[in-house]
Amino acid sequence: MNKYLERIESLRALMRARSWDAVVVRGSDPHQSEYPCQRYKRVEWLSGFTGEAADMLVTLDHAGLWTDSRYFIQALQQLEGSGVQLHKTRVPGAQSIEQWIAQNLDSDSVVAIDSLCNSAAQAAELERECSVCPVPDLLSLLWEDRPMLPQTPFFCIESGESRESKIDWLRSQMDGHNCSWMLVSALDQIAWLLNVRASDIEYNPLLISYLLVGMDEVRFYALKQEIEDEDSRLCIAELQAQGIDVLPYTLVELDLAGISQERVWVDPETLNAELYKHLSCPLYEAPCPIEARKAIKNGFELRSMEQCHIQDGLAMERFLYWIETSLAEGRSISEWEASVKLDQLRAQASDYLYESFETISAYGADAALPHFVTPRQNSALLQSEGLYLCDSGGQYLSGTTDITRTVPLGPCTRERAEDYTLVLKAHINLALAVFPSGTPGCRVDAAARLPLWKTLRDFGHGTGHGVGFFLGVHEGPAQIRQNLSPAPLLAGMVFSNEPALYREGSHGIRHENLMVVEEAGENEFGHFLRFRELTLCHFDTSILDASLLTKEEIDWLNSYNNRVFRTLGPLLDERTAAWLEVKTAPICLE
Amino acid sequence: MNKYLERIESLRALMRARSWDAVVVRGSDPHQSEYPCQRYKRVEWLSGFTGEAADMLVTLDHAGLWTDSRYFIQALQQLEGSGVQLHKTRVPGAQSIEQWIAQNLDSDSVVAIDSLCNSAAQAAELERECSVCPVPDLLSLLWEDRPMLPQTPFFCIESGESRESKIDWLRSQMDGHNCSWMLVSALDQIAWLLNVRASDIEYNPLLISYLLVGMDEVRFYALKQEIEDEDSRLCIAELQAQGIDVLPYTLVELDLAGISQERVWVDPETLNAELYKHLSCPLYEAPCPIEARKAIKNGFELRSMEQCHIQDGLAMERFLYWIETSLAEGRSISEWEASVKLDQLRAQASDYLYESFETISAYGADAALPHFVTPRQNSALLQSEGLYLCDSGGQYLSGTTDITRTVPLGPCTRERAEDYTLVLKAHINLALAVFPSGTPGCRVDAAARLPLWKTLRDFGHGTGHGVGFFLGVHEGPAQIRQNLSPAPLLAGMVFSNEPALYREGSHGIRHENLMVVEEAGENEFGHFLRFRELTLCHFDTSILDASLLTKEEIDWLNSYNNRVFRTLGPLLDERTAAWLEVKTAPICLE
Repeated sequence: MNKYLERIESLRALMRARSWDAVVVRGSDPHQSEYPCQRYKRVEWLSGFTGEAADMLVTLDHAGLWTDSRYFIQALQQLEGSGVQLHKTRVPGAQSIEQWIAQNLDSDSVVAIDSLCNSAAQAAELERECSVCPVPDLLSLLWEDRPMLPQTPFFCIESGESRESKIDWLRSQMDGHNCSWMLVSALDQIAWLLNVRASDIEYNPLLISYLLVGMDEVRFYALKQEIEDEDSRLCIAELQAQGIDVLPYTLVELDLAGISQERVWVDPETLNAELYKHLSCPLYEAPCPIEARKAIKNGFELRSMEQCHIQDGLAMERFLYWIETSLAEGRSISEWEASVKLDQLRAQASDYLYESFETISAYGADAALPHFVTPRQNSALLQSEGLYLCDSGGQYLSGTTDITRTVPLGPCTRERAEDYTLVLKAHINLALAVFPSGTPGCRVDAAARLPLWKTLRDFGHGTGHGVGFFLGVHEGPAQIRQNLSPAPLLAGMVFSNEPALYREGSHGIRHENLMVVEEAGENEFGHFLRFRELTLCHFDTSILDASLLTKEEIDWLNSYNNRVFRTLGPLLDERTAAWLEVKTAPICLE
Repeated sequence: MNKYLERIESLRALMRARSWDAVVVRGSDPHQSEYPCQRYKRVEWLSGFTGEAADMLVTLDHAGLWTDSRYFIQALQQLEGSGVQLHKTRVPGAQSIEQWIAQNLDSDSVVAIDSLCNSAAQAAELERECSVCPVPDLLSLLWEDRPMLPQTPFFCIESGESRESKIDWLRSQMDGHNCSWMLVSALDQIAWLLNVRASDIEYNPLLISYLLVGMDEVRFYALKQEIEDEDSRLCIAELQAQGIDVLPYTLVELDLAGISQERVWVDPETLNAELYKHLSCPLYEAPCPIEARKAIKNGFELRSMEQCHIQDGLAMERFLYWIETSLAEGRSISEWEASVKLDQLRAQASDYLYESFETISAYGADAALPHFVTPRQNSALLQSEGLYLCDSGGQYLSGTTDITRTVPLGPCTRERAEDYTLVLKAHINLALAVFPSGTPGCRVDAAARLPLWKTLRDFGHGTGHGVGFFLGVHEGPAQIRQNLSPAPLLAGMVFSNEPALYREGSHGIRHENLMVVEEAGENEFGHFLRFRELTLCHFDTSILDASLLTKEEIDWLNSYNNRVFRTLGPLLDERTAAWLEVKTAPICLE
């Protein structure tokens, strides 16, 4: 019997014993993190699906997994034999878990949720459709060898603004809404406010913790195990010297229960339903203001990110040179070896820590899966023809990077050359865009897509996501994508620019840089913004069909490649620099 | 004492007598029409403001008028001496009437509203902030010589789909939501469903009425006065022969009160609070599905609109020829004379009825007001230099038109030539746009603005509005504008394309065509749409700075002007045709 089917059946036995009609299992953790640590990979434990974003609903006669188009093929493969059915999200006519419940269960059905891993907002939404039974850490009743909560070394960082200044600002926000306390539950918001980093979650320099900020005190619930390392001790000492109490993680519930009269600001989107349930004080429920402020990088953060992009660009250029010369010498390189090599090259930078997400190293048809997972064993070998796509990034003390290059490894079909050029045209159109301050990302997104749409091409994912300063590679509140979110693009924000094109069974193309939003000018018509590239790595021009580009677009490309050579050339060894000079030679308008 | 101040004071006396703390007066009518008939021009009666879109709030010590940027200057002029203060809407930080009430009145304040002219949705929104006292036709207590409800002749039209077919479709919609009745309250929705038109409201071929559609009967509450004309009698006979009861307008309230068990579909956005109050039956509250279906024109409607745009184009070309030759001959033309002349030229078409809105005939700095009201007396004279803007349209039996041309009457400054070219570039970029079916208008809007934004220019109003088939010149649900409305653009919809630029004290430029959305192709990437121009009138190229245009844009312009000449030339007299040939000669890429 399939291992996952067995686990689902044991869950159903529990459901019968407790008279639950259904159980909702979320892919997130008690902090609504995008990536959970091992202990909270409950969807993976229950279904075998390893994608980043999925929720499950199990009834006595149905088990469903909800995920988006990035993972449809992977989910179908991994769910085979588990009896779990795929429910597609973000497609026309998609049905959410709540809608499925409304249509398929009686309104007096009892749905059990893991109250730690459902946000207060998610629980409230479910409660509109059924009777919700909140159970903290629901699956621990079944999951025997479940990992502990991690306690990785944590440390204080320089960010251009002291934590005192950030806490003062937060208190002024609390004061503006008559709140005596702010409960910060999102891990990247805590890390930003306290200038603290750790490695509790893979790829994310975060510390699993809660933060309770009062008008006269700050309580940091960060201790999950005995602290044994020197870094953490130093960091604790620094925090305590500034009057910040560093306390056991689980104490937060008791402390919150002790507040009864004063008004507490909570964010129901990130606060879990379990803690929410125990609050008896007056609440102000609103988005935590840290998210919007954190997105606007200060001068120090931007200068640091520029520096780390030089390091990252050097690693990328050395990587691309290594691939080209290795293939020319007839050496065999697999997708997995390439991703390992890139990590090694990044590690030459002194302040590199680890990858900011799992590298997508995809040759040929593999790249047609936007989130291809490169297998450790038996991954495809790169050939001297067609296209190779590599989407990767690093966590440096000086910042977070995220870059995709799609490189021709030899001759390409006409269709591939055209697709390659048109995706680059889309990339350049967004890079060149100017827009009024405060424009929502869904309107700026059109700048990238219009050139693709004109040729009846499109891609299913967003064009750009926010990127943190030595924090998550994905951050809100603004994004450059289809969804009609009102979150505005503002000066100082950092976004990816990653238009793409995927042809199943043939190839995938994505050209991605990070860009910072900066001032473009102010006049009677408004206050305008534009983008400036942070990423430094040339775009290959060998298969470009320049007849598809305007003069303005070619000028941008030549100028960008030239800047890459001028910046990185002097820092590369002679042979790589000479190679890069050829790679970045200007192309002409046909 | 200012007449309006006097009226406001008499309203305040009434407020004191009834213990009302505030009164809300809306600019609309009992059907939430964009334009009210004379009887419902209550904002104008109370304040003297004649703009199309304004609401008022009067308290014992404050009188405010809420309107958008199109009317700021006009409002300041017309409100002088009335004591009424302007509150700006659709600007950053704008405060709605509801927000003003929340901030300035106690929560137990009593706010009287005209329950006939507030929609159920508006009343519900107000009720969240204060105690609402609904009073039908509130101002009639003060307004003595108030006009009656109009009863203009009404008539049946051909629309390519029988009213039986439309009613059958509506019943299937009702059935899908378990409704036995649908109350249609929006006038253009009633006119569309019944294939009936009249002239009860200026510029709008509408009949002030209600419609109650049941599964076996249709009740049309259309009779406000004795019917004396033959057209109306014939139309009534045709409707009654098809089983549609034509009933007195005021009977609707009684009939609705008679429904107690069956479920009625009402649209709280267009149903007034007075009728809503009297409903005691189960309700299904949702947008009326007619709005979305009406926006998608059928083949007959599209062919008719193409025909009426030939008539409209002939009138426009004769008009532009008349202006140019008159000025060349030294004849003096005022803005007002020009608008009268254009109406006369349109009237040469046999099926022309009247203007579809008040013509904006604006020379020089007058055009810097997007909604300039051309004065009947002492309007400015056109000079042989600078720019003249004319925004006008017609109601034809075969369709509704809306066109703006901005024409150089002689030498222009470099700034004006540049502005003129860049607005045309924006217009062409939208005309050339291709986009996935279902894309919301706010994303398509960016196609027009991106070229302007790149030069740090912008305009404050939307780029395009829906246009009816011999109905309102503005219709929903989709629009091409900034607002993040999810209403999708679909094949068969007709939109204006009217990017613009305004420099106060100098000039205003707007280039407007109507376009229909049509299929562009379907493939693995989606189902794509594009635009096709309905409007036929050349764009003047004399001051164009072709260096600001791409080859694709110049090709579009040459091809469009050539199509105008080929279509209209053979239908014009020899001299006008020869002139048009010169005007539409192709320009070259510089």
